[in-house]
Amino acid sequence: MQGAILVLSGPSGAGKSTIINHASDKIGSYYFSISTTTRPPREGEVDGVDYYFVSHSEFEEDIKAGNFLEYATVHENYYGTSLKPVNEALNAGKLVIFDIDVQGHRLVQAKMADLVTSAFITPPTLSELERRLYARSTDKTEVIQKRVENAKEEIKAISEFDYIIINDILENASHRFATIAQAARLKQSHKELAKFTLNWRNSQQ
Amino acid sequence: MQGAILVLSGPSGAGKSTIINHASDKIGSYYFSISTTTRPPREGEVDGVDYYFVSHSEFEEDIKAGNFLEYATVHENYYGTSLKPVNEALNAGKLVIFDIDVQGHRLVQAKMADLVTSAFITPPTLSELERRLYARSTDKTEVIQKRVENAKEEIKAISEFDYIIINDILENASHRFATIAQAARLKQSHKELAKFTLNWRNSQQ
Repeated sequence: MQGAILVLSGPSGAGKSTIINHASDKIGSYYFSISTTTRPPREGEVDGVDYYFVSHSEFEEDIKAGNFLEYATVHENYYGTSLKPVNEALNAGKLVIFDIDVQGHRLVQAKMADLVTSAFITPPTLSELERRLYARSTDKTEVIQKRVENAKEEIKAISEFDYIIINDILENASHRFATIAQAARLKQSHKELAKFTLNWRNSQQ
Repeated sequence: MQGAILVLSGPSGAGKSTIINHASDKIGSYYFSISTTTRPPREGEVDGVDYYFVSHSEFEEDIKAGNFLEYATVHENYYGTSLKPVNEALNAGKLVIFDIDVQGHRLVQAKMADLVTSAFITPPTLSELERRLYARSTDKTEVIQKRVENAKEEIKAISEFDYIIINDILENASHRFATIAQAARLKQSHKELAKFTLNWRNSQQ
């Protein structure tokens, strides 16, 4: 059986990774999609774990060859999702989890709508998002303010998602996430449904 | 919090009631939508349990007053879903379960898409459906053949549903149904999302 896709979007600081890790024993075998980028690795980042790091010209060749499910330019660097590992995981029947922004979600929907379940993860309030971003104190104030402005834009797109997960209490958010992930696995592609219907109708004796 | 709607369709003999009953302790508080009909009660049928039985003129007055979520004529009798009990259950935060045909599903989607999750329940094959209909032997051969022909038409609409549940092994089908019902509860109406977004954006200090 074919796998399925679960798209997670939401502001940086919403707690997406924490929720996935907390629920990981309840959601079965999954593949967490790794993005490809032309941005240079930061200290501690590992190729094939944090990102696939490639050169500008490699990325552009892949664009021409139609190798991306979605891609975008951010601050003159390319970021994208390569189709190959996604298709391999889908063919192995895995749930493929994407952590992408609302634009990336639109592009994935446009190409693979019948495989996609999507959820927007957000802190309960904007002021709570700000508090968390300052508390983790890995970013400069101007970066945090940029993230907050992005979040105010992104949240306008929540009605495009199948579900929203309000990350107030981790236990609750993680339980909701596990339910959504289990349901996502039950989605069947139009191709599978067409095959099932054909066999079903032809089974009459 | 507002409730949600779960539409179940599928051929008579698919085992919808059996699956719901088997999973009922896992899906929390729900309201099973009772249809309104002008068909006379059969022996043993109870008003307000099996159907709401009304006269032809009462039904037509309700149509004019816009009191139906969906309705249709079958063999010169009206069958429909009254809005009032559905809205009451939704306002009480319940999951409202509908057992309606693919036409009814289209009408409910047209009016309340943002509240609806839908599943098509089917035996694994058409020949298995026939076998079950003959085995329960409550219907005449010509009624069974009519049901089989209906099923062959209805199954063409499965790609309109969010999920399909193949009722092969009851345990599995019931588990899948419970997951879908739990996910259905997490759906939030556009109205709720708009309110959440507004409050969220205005929370900045």
